[in-house]
Amino acid sequence: MSPFAKRKSGSIAALGESALLEKIRRWLGPVSPPAPFGIGDDCAVLPAARGQQLITVDPVIYGRHFDDAVPPAGVGAKLLKRNLSDLAAMGARPTTAVLALTLDPRVSLRWLEQFYRGLAAEARRWRVRIVGGDLTQAENFIGAYLTLLGETAGPRAVTRTGARAGDAIYVTGELGGSRLGRHWRFRPRLAEGAWLARRPTVRAMMDVSDGLAKDLRALTPPGAVSAIDTAAIPVSAAARRLATRTKKSPLHHALCDGEDYELVFALAAQANHTAFEHAWQRAFPRTRLTRIGQFATTTAKIPNILRLDDFAGYEHFR
Amino acid sequence: MSPFAKRKSGSIAALGESALLEKIRRWLGPVSPPAPFGIGDDCAVLPAARGQQLITVDPVIYGRHFDDAVPPAGVGAKLLKRNLSDLAAMGARPTTAVLALTLDPRVSLRWLEQFYRGLAAEARRWRVRIVGGDLTQAENFIGAYLTLLGETAGPRAVTRTGARAGDAIYVTGELGGSRLGRHWRFRPRLAEGAWLARRPTVRAMMDVSDGLAKDLRALTPPGAVSAIDTAAIPVSAAARRLATRTKKSPLHHALCDGEDYELVFALAAQANHTAFEHAWQRAFPRTRLTRIGQFATTTAKIPNILRLDDFAGYEHFR
Repeated sequence: MSPFAKRKSGSIAALGESALLEKIRRWLGPVSPPAPFGIGDDCAVLPAARGQQLITVDPVIYGRHFDDAVPPAGVGAKLLKRNLSDLAAMGARPTTAVLALTLDPRVSLRWLEQFYRGLAAEARRWRVRIVGGDLTQAENFIGAYLTLLGETAGPRAVTRTGARAGDAIYVTGELGGSRLGRHWRFRPRLAEGAWLARRPTVRAMMDVSDGLAKDLRALTPPGAVSAIDTAAIPVSAAARRLATRTKKSPLHHALCDGEDYELVFALAAQANHTAFEHAWQRAFPRTRLTRIGQFATTTAKIPNILRLDDFAGYEHFR
Repeated sequence: MSPFAKRKSGSIAALGESALLEKIRRWLGPVSPPAPFGIGDDCAVLPAARGQQLITVDPVIYGRHFDDAVPPAGVGAKLLKRNLSDLAAMGARPTTAVLALTLDPRVSLRWLEQFYRGLAAEARRWRVRIVGGDLTQAENFIGAYLTLLGETAGPRAVTRTGARAGDAIYVTGELGGSRLGRHWRFRPRLAEGAWLARRPTVRAMMDVSDGLAKDLRALTPPGAVSAIDTAAIPVSAAARRLATRTKKSPLHHALCDGEDYELVFALAAQANHTAFEHAWQRAFPRTRLTRIGQFATTTAKIPNILRLDDFAGYEHFR
C-alpha cells in the first residue's frame, strides 16, 4: 500500500495538525497514557524504573526500511520491534517509548491510521507505553524515529563485550533472506534474551541486524577470531529462495544480509553445553538454537572453518 | 554553509560507516561515555535517576529548522537546545540524550564535524551525556532527532494544567522575529524554569514554541479565556525589524511567530506579584519578565484586552 493519498482530501494536510493529533491519540488508545505521563505536555513524566534502565533508538524510513509492499500496520510494528530487538540483545524488557514522526503532507490518513494501529497493537503485546512524540512536516520523506526505554529483567544487562577465546558461538533462529518478508514479520527475541541473561555462562550477546559476518566482529574478543563451521550455519529457506534470484550462495545471504533480528551470543567454554541446549529446548521448543563455532586465538588447528573476520559485511554510506 | 560536499571525496559516503562512527565518537569526546554506558552496544545502560524522570523528543530538519544560513555548530546546538527548552518548561534539568541522524550520502564531513562539535559544546555546557544513536542514509534529506531525558530539579514537575481563572500570565524575554537568528542563538531557560518550579504559586508553565497566541491555549483553564494587554506584550526588536519586510505588525510577529523558546506561566491570583517580580529581578537581572494579562472567565469587564483564544496560531500540515 502506498503511503500517499490519491486525492488531497485523503491526505493529512487536508486534516491539519490539531485534528491529526486528536486522531493519533485515539489510534494509540490506552497505549498512550494521559499527560503529564503521556502525550500533551512539554515532556512526559516517567514512572520510576525498577531495574537498571536502558535506552535505544532506531527509525523506519520509507524506501529504506519499508516500501509499498509492507502493509502500514507492519511498518508500525516493525518500528517498535527493531527497538525491542536491541533490548532483547541485552536481556532487558521494554517500558516506555517516544516517537518522532516526519511526514510528507501528501501521506494518506488511511495509511497513517494503520501505521499507528499496528504500532499500538505491538506496544500492547509487549506492554510498552508510548508517552510522547513529535510530528514534523517534510517534503518527499517519511520517517518514524522511536526511542525505547527498558529495564533489566534479571540481575544484569548482557553486553557485547565479555566473550573469551574458547567460548562457543550460538545463534537463534535462521539467517538470511529477511528482505523477502521476515524483516517486518519477525518476533523480537525478548523472552529468549531475558532467559539467556539469567545464565552467567552467557558471556556476551547482541542481535544480528547488519548480517552475522559483520556483527560478529563486535562480539569477538581482542586478539581472537571467530571460527565458524559453515556447514552449521542455520540458512533460512528465504535465503535459499533469494539465492536462486541473486546468483549468490544461500550461505552468502545467511552471513551478509541484514535485518535477521536473531540473537548471537558467546557461551563460556567450561559451560555444560549439552545441558544448556536441553534447557533451551525445554524453554523454547519452537526456536532453533545452533552452535555455529567458537572464538579462537588461532585457527591453525581447526579444520573446515571460515574466519568470519575476513568477511566484508554491510557498510552503510557506501 | 551548505551541508553538501562539493566533491565526493569530502562527503561522508567517501569515508564509509565504520570510519564515520569512529570520527563521531572523537567529535563528541567526553560527552559520550564508553559502552555500555554510551555508544557501542545494542542499548546504552543509564545511570540511576535521582528525581522524577522526564523525556522529550524534537528534531532539526534541513529546510525546515535550519538552512545554509545557520552555521553547522549552531544546528547541533539548536537540536539540543530545542529539547532543553522542553525540560525548562517543566522545571527539570537534563541528564542523557540519544541521537538518530538521517543523512544524505553527499553531506560533507566538514559540515558534520562542526554539527557534532556544536552539539558536544552545548552538551558540555548543560552536562548532558550523549549515550546512543543511530545513523541512517536517505536521499535528499538531512534530519537529526534527539531524545532527551531529564529529572526534576526540585520537588515537582510543572505541567501545562493547573492555571485557574484570575491567575496572572507572565512571559520571559521578548517575542517574535525569531527567524532572524534567535531560533538557533537562544539560550534555553533552564535556570529560570527550575527557579519557577520551586515556587508553589507558579501553577502551570510551558515554553513558547509555536507562537504565544497558539501555545497559550494549552495553558488556559477550561471555561476561561486568556485576556491579554496587547500594550504589555514584550515585542522583540527582531519582530519590529521583520515587520518592515512582511508588512505585518510587530505585534502579529510577537504573537504568531514560532520558535521563541521563552517560558509562559500562570502565577496564582493570590500571590504577592510585586514580591515575586522583585525576587525574579534579583535572580535573573538580565532576563526580562512581563506580566501580559490574566486568565478570566469573562472578559466583559476588562478594558483594552485581546482575547488570544480568538487568534489562529501556526498550524503544521497546512
